[in-house]
Amino acid sequence: MATETEQSSEQPWEAICTALERANREELEGVLERLGPAETARGISRLESEEQNALFQLLACEDAADVLESIPEAQAAEVLDDLSCERAAAIVDEMSADKRADILGELDQENAEAILTEMSSQDAAEVRRILAFPPDTAGGIMLPDFVAFSHRKSVAEVLDELRHSGEEFSDYEIQYAYVVDESGHLRGVLRLRDLLFARRGAAVTEVMLTEPVHVDARVELSELREMFEQHSFLGIPVTENEQLVGVVHRRQVDDAIERESGRTLLRLTGIQGGEELRSMPLHARAGRRLSWLSINVLLNLLAASVIAYYQDTLEQAIVLAVFLPIISDMSGCSGNQAVAVSMRELTLGLIKPSDLGHVLAKEVSVGLINGLALGGLLAVAALVWQQNPLLGLVVGGALGINTLVAVTLGGLLPLAMRRAGYDPALASGPILTTVTDVCGFFVLLRLATFVLPGLSA
Amino acid sequence: MATETEQSSEQPWEAICTALERANREELEGVLERLGPAETARGISRLESEEQNALFQLLACEDAADVLESIPEAQAAEVLDDLSCERAAAIVDEMSADKRADILGELDQENAEAILTEMSSQDAAEVRRILAFPPDTAGGIMLPDFVAFSHRKSVAEVLDELRHSGEEFSDYEIQYAYVVDESGHLRGVLRLRDLLFARRGAAVTEVMLTEPVHVDARVELSELREMFEQHSFLGIPVTENEQLVGVVHRRQVDDAIERESGRTLLRLTGIQGGEELRSMPLHARAGRRLSWLSINVLLNLLAASVIAYYQDTLEQAIVLAVFLPIISDMSGCSGNQAVAVSMRELTLGLIKPSDLGHVLAKEVSVGLINGLALGGLLAVAALVWQQNPLLGLVVGGALGINTLVAVTLGGLLPLAMRRAGYDPALASGPILTTVTDVCGFFVLLRLATFVLPGLSA
Repeated sequence: MATETEQSSEQPWEAICTALERANREELEGVLERLGPAETARGISRLESEEQNALFQLLACEDAADVLESIPEAQAAEVLDDLSCERAAAIVDEMSADKRADILGELDQENAEAILTEMSSQDAAEVRRILAFPPDTAGGIMLPDFVAFSHRKSVAEVLDELRHSGEEFSDYEIQYAYVVDESGHLRGVLRLRDLLFARRGAAVTEVMLTEPVHVDARVELSELREMFEQHSFLGIPVTENEQLVGVVHRRQVDDAIERESGRTLLRLTGIQGGEELRSMPLHARAGRRLSWLSINVLLNLLAASVIAYYQDTLEQAIVLAVFLPIISDMSGCSGNQAVAVSMRELTLGLIKPSDLGHVLAKEVSVGLINGLALGGLLAVAALVWQQNPLLGLVVGGALGINTLVAVTLGGLLPLAMRRAGYDPALASGPILTTVTDVCGFFVLLRLATFVLPGLSA
Repeated sequence: MATETEQSSEQPWEAICTALERANREELEGVLERLGPAETARGISRLESEEQNALFQLLACEDAADVLESIPEAQAAEVLDDLSCERAAAIVDEMSADKRADILGELDQENAEAILTEMSSQDAAEVRRILAFPPDTAGGIMLPDFVAFSHRKSVAEVLDELRHSGEEFSDYEIQYAYVVDESGHLRGVLRLRDLLFARRGAAVTEVMLTEPVHVDARVELSELREMFEQHSFLGIPVTENEQLVGVVHRRQVDDAIERESGRTLLRLTGIQGGEELRSMPLHARAGRRLSWLSINVLLNLLAASVIAYYQDTLEQAIVLAVFLPIISDMSGCSGNQAVAVSMRELTLGLIKPSDLGHVLAKEVSVGLINGLALGGLLAVAALVWQQNPLLGLVVGGALGINTLVAVTLGGLLPLAMRRAGYDPALASGPILTTVTDVCGFFVLLRLATFVLPGLSA
């Protein structure tokens, strides 16, 4: 393992660029090997897109495939997009079967198809079969490669086949073999340890596990995750119309879930249309962030119109203007905490979208306590600053009421969004802040209007 | 797999409560089995703490251990905290070795020690050894159980031992066995497939992989993750002073990373001191959220003091008050997007805390584009509303400038925080919003002061 201290002061992208300028493939391979996958990924993300292109032209296809597998998929897809279809197909051909589909799935359908037509028809068919399923289903994340034997074979025949195929199966893949009948239907699972202690003359049907657990290709990620939590399987066979079509290992499920949770973070801040990496073109990065920000300006104007409506009140007690942004910001923070707790409990399966009543009860109590505490704190601050008890009462009361609203709404929104079929990460934030702004501004200025003579004094 | 449609309309906690009221262990076990782990976890999170206590008193220790292993660790720790030490120890005794340390690690050291003293001294020693390492190191997440054979054994002896120990090793654990010498030093790794094709008379040293990849117990999670990405190992042996002390499987690494990322989401919204689940006591939930919110009130007051300072300007152009919360909210959003992208790239290893210059260059360009776009949008909105080009120029200009500041600062903060040894998830948000509020309010009101006669017209 290369640690930080072992590296020279030269940055990874500098070493890569030097080798690229000399167009020296061997030197480049040496540099990448010395850097290791993590530093290579960091180095590549720092290259200009022409340099990235030169890099993947210069490398042997096999090495290029290795590198692409070790960098984030969105970045790998950008690289493939910039290469010719022939070159891209030659590299994709060298990738492992599961990575192929993951990376091609990041491309536009048209570009992916252009690369697929250049690939061997069998490999292309495998990838198309995976891409035909949504990416959060067993079919969408399965490995299309698996080791299957006819149910008519003996243990000795299976052992011979395994021995001869030798290096074809990596350590990782070979934990289970599957037994199928003539029509491709799954009959049983063979574990290596069963073969280890079996008579060579026995039929595989004698040593295999019968009625094996399997999933339909349409089963969703959350259910797969639950199955792996419940059992200690290394892999689960995937079937379509009872026929064995692939295998899902724990690793594919974990990878898919991690991919999801990384994107959730970005989506929560309104970065849309795929993930952002700083190696992507400027227009894509600015655009993805802007699309939601522009809507947010309009939502903000909506909330601000409440202030405009109460302009007369403000004019008579200008000191209220100081507290408007505080109410807005604090309510947003309190609400977002509740959103985060609900998102997490949804992910952990501890609440369902229908559990609105439970979440309501749990959040109202927190909202009341925190509303009292924060409202009290702000009231004291206002009192100390302006020596006006009425002002303290108005701003403290407004923050208290609005904290209750924000916490309750924040807890419920992710459930309601999920129920209505929207992405809770994307939709909860803007709705929450707009509603709490409108409500907070209204409560503060409405309360202030009641006691206006006392405030403007 | 129990799917939603198969379940009766009865909620999981109702079924559990009915069995609890009758104090009928068999019925309770039947209910939990029918529910499956996911629904059981959801049901338990809905019980009062006395009901939870009754549940874990009534269940057989083995079943209680199974249930505790399938619910979130923070919740399992709460349950153990409420039981007597003897009962808790009896249940923990039945847990798998890796879960034991995970759950006891969630308790206060004192409470964990009280349970450990009730356990068998060997099990307790194993747990203590794991807890002695930080939770994000190989030693902190390793399994203390492993299968090791003396380097003097033959293949036949190893096979016999494996056959006799039989069910003791689950499918999951038995992928590799380790070969050690008399002093416990790691000499090699035995794969099942090596045994499958070996002569029975051979020495294990002939078929084992020599110079096996291993990690020191102090190696950090990020490095472990990189090793599993680089190699297709199922497990990596963990050593302390060259002696084999445990094994880390891919699963432990994935679990630890998922645990981290779930907490990051909560920490980003300022929920401190451990994760919040709604099954926890109200005072803990309100308190964890409040601790940061109270600081945030003070930070907000700091920002608001800029408005107070410019009260005269506001008084002459009260319309500016409408735009103060917009500038505050929009800058916060733009900045948080950049924070999220930096957090993600740090996690993926694409940037290091020292890459400030690179991030600065990448964010300034996005900040300029989005600042122009958003500032322009707000300027047009102000112009349309008030028919005052000067107002448009002032509010648009202020938002534009502040967007540039927020995006740049948001991109840099997580790196600077990590560099200074602070938690970037926790520290970036409050600093960002305070600085952008102060800066935004100042720029808007300062600009407005220059052109005041034109605004108040």
